[in-house]
Amino acid sequence: MDSRGRGLEAAQLDWKCMVATLTWTADGVRFIDQTKLPLEESYVLAENYEQVAQCIETMVVRGAPAIGVSAAYGVALGAIRSRAETAEEFAPEMAKICARLAATRPTAVNLFWAIDRMKLRFATLAGSGTPLEEIRGKLLAEAQAMYEEDIAACKAMGAYGAELLPDEGSVLTHCNAGALATCGYGTALGVIRAAVERGKRIGVYVDETRPFLQGARLTAWELVVDGIATTVICDNMAASLMLRGRIQAVVVGADRIAANGDVANKIGTYSVAISAWEHGIPFYVAAPWSTIDLGTASGDAIPIEERPAAEVTHHGGKQLTPAGVGVCNPAFDVTPARYVTAIVTERGVLRAPYGEALARMNGRVSLNFQSVRG
Amino acid sequence: MDSRGRGLEAAQLDWKCMVATLTWTADGVRFIDQTKLPLEESYVLAENYEQVAQCIETMVVRGAPAIGVSAAYGVALGAIRSRAETAEEFAPEMAKICARLAATRPTAVNLFWAIDRMKLRFATLAGSGTPLEEIRGKLLAEAQAMYEEDIAACKAMGAYGAELLPDEGSVLTHCNAGALATCGYGTALGVIRAAVERGKRIGVYVDETRPFLQGARLTAWELVVDGIATTVICDNMAASLMLRGRIQAVVVGADRIAANGDVANKIGTYSVAISAWEHGIPFYVAAPWSTIDLGTASGDAIPIEERPAAEVTHHGGKQLTPAGVGVCNPAFDVTPARYVTAIVTERGVLRAPYGEALARMNGRVSLNFQSVRG
Repeated sequence: MDSRGRGLEAAQLDWKCMVATLTWTADGVRFIDQTKLPLEESYVLAENYEQVAQCIETMVVRGAPAIGVSAAYGVALGAIRSRAETAEEFAPEMAKICARLAATRPTAVNLFWAIDRMKLRFATLAGSGTPLEEIRGKLLAEAQAMYEEDIAACKAMGAYGAELLPDEGSVLTHCNAGALATCGYGTALGVIRAAVERGKRIGVYVDETRPFLQGARLTAWELVVDGIATTVICDNMAASLMLRGRIQAVVVGADRIAANGDVANKIGTYSVAISAWEHGIPFYVAAPWSTIDLGTASGDAIPIEERPAAEVTHHGGKQLTPAGVGVCNPAFDVTPARYVTAIVTERGVLRAPYGEALARMNGRVSLNFQSVRG
Repeated sequence: MDSRGRGLEAAQLDWKCMVATLTWTADGVRFIDQTKLPLEESYVLAENYEQVAQCIETMVVRGAPAIGVSAAYGVALGAIRSRAETAEEFAPEMAKICARLAATRPTAVNLFWAIDRMKLRFATLAGSGTPLEEIRGKLLAEAQAMYEEDIAACKAMGAYGAELLPDEGSVLTHCNAGALATCGYGTALGVIRAAVERGKRIGVYVDETRPFLQGARLTAWELVVDGIATTVICDNMAASLMLRGRIQAVVVGADRIAANGDVANKIGTYSVAISAWEHGIPFYVAAPWSTIDLGTASGDAIPIEERPAAEVTHHGGKQLTPAGVGVCNPAFDVTPARYVTAIVTERGVLRAPYGEALARMNGRVSLNFQSVRG
């Protein structure tokens, strides 16, 4: 690991929960196995890009920002493992590696953003005649920069988002938009962490998030490790808690935000958004700029991944449902922009109308973001 | 079994799915074990009232109408098993039996309605000097009458409710308000069955209904047995399917309906009602008159049972959540009357304002109900 890696470790020290979602090592990318948490804390080493792709597909690693950076490391790993001797010889292999990684999951746009960034870096380096050995190092450095930027973006989102939360009360979150969904700290959970660090007295209700239980398993685990008061509920309980005045705000992550502000996120997010709207509770989305897809006009155009039926019909190898029944298992839904109170990014907080706000903020580099990173 | 029982069997023959939710036998009450379905079809015999109470508490038998009739059989069984020789001697025992059965579950009002009816029957018989041996037989006959009435009420609700459903389309239901929640045929599923019997081309989306999975396990099983097209979804998917135009109506059961039309039903019902409202989809509640509690002014006054945390944190004996996390597990929620498009009872279909409609219909015996029974 080069000096960037060591710098990163130092930067992370101010945050107490050191969840090693994905880590670059001399042998490849090491993932905490998110299919096994919280009862088993085990790790998977992906030694080549195909293994990285499989870890994304099987949700050993998940969460839009985390799979983006994982894919970037996958590209770097592909370059490092390649037997090609020149950039020209490697170019078709590079295309194949990128296509394989891009085919893992369709909804989160961070994956495509990260792969495109690696492609651009390669094209620029190859175009300027850089030797392949040097390109390998620079592709790895690019992936590591994305890793660092992701944590910095989470910290910046935390700083912006913390202001939005009440000084005291309960916040609902859905799925896992935490350290485990990013390179560290988290998007929605970053906002919650930052609010708690600033002295706000926040408790968290966590939707269990069927069928994969990212809330009950992953978010609950992260928050308990951090000592934040955490209550797991079934997804179908949130509306009732809102009616009883038990929830003051909602914060979720995102897998893709369209140019009009429509938000694709974990299945069930839309249901939470409707409930929050109906009860006059603010509904915040926290996501890095890499989640914003200005090339997609609205949520209607976002492809929604359908996952295997067995995620719904079975648990722990045991069947729950009778034979002969049909199953739906869309992994995501789209929340129309009108239900979103604000979108928190590392560049600042956006409010409706989102089409204008996103276009405006896309044009400038935020000074605040620079200062938070510095 | 007396002639009433045989008459009942004949009456049931026109409905093909012979789910034996609860059956009076010479040895006691036989329940299909709803904690084991759909993978295991096993039965539990309750030989005394205490065992009936335990079957209700542990949800071997569940569903508001079914637990009402179960409790009535429990009272009859208590009288039959008692060593008392006179009605006077039995009276304090009767009070104890009723108190034990009433303490099993707090939310569904059918339980209290059924116990009160048995108490009244006993008081009337004892007051007129009827010998205890004769009272025993008459209490059993009363419970068996309630069993028959329940199935007749379901058939009547089916006839009224079928008219409300579209000729073709998909209906969403939550939890199990089917044959397994009643003495047969079902309330919400009775409406769906009746619509299908009348030639309507109805497919059913079934919320899995965490944490006990009544939808994924019980409703799916019943509907597959009946050959009705059935698709299980996670609770958090319903709103998204509504947004995509995939659901044309919602039908659910109820555990208690207050005098103003507020509906207590399985946790998650309120979330479905909000989603239906937001998408302009009709939201129907089907429940027998015994579910209506005119003594409770509004949903705020309905006690909501909190069930053990382990129902949420564990599945199949395996823990899902990390240690140290809090859990909420309310078994029911209250849907305010304003979200309810219509309430289907065996006396007819009620529409808002429900306070007036319920009071009006409470005053008269429906001729339609009599004709459906006949």
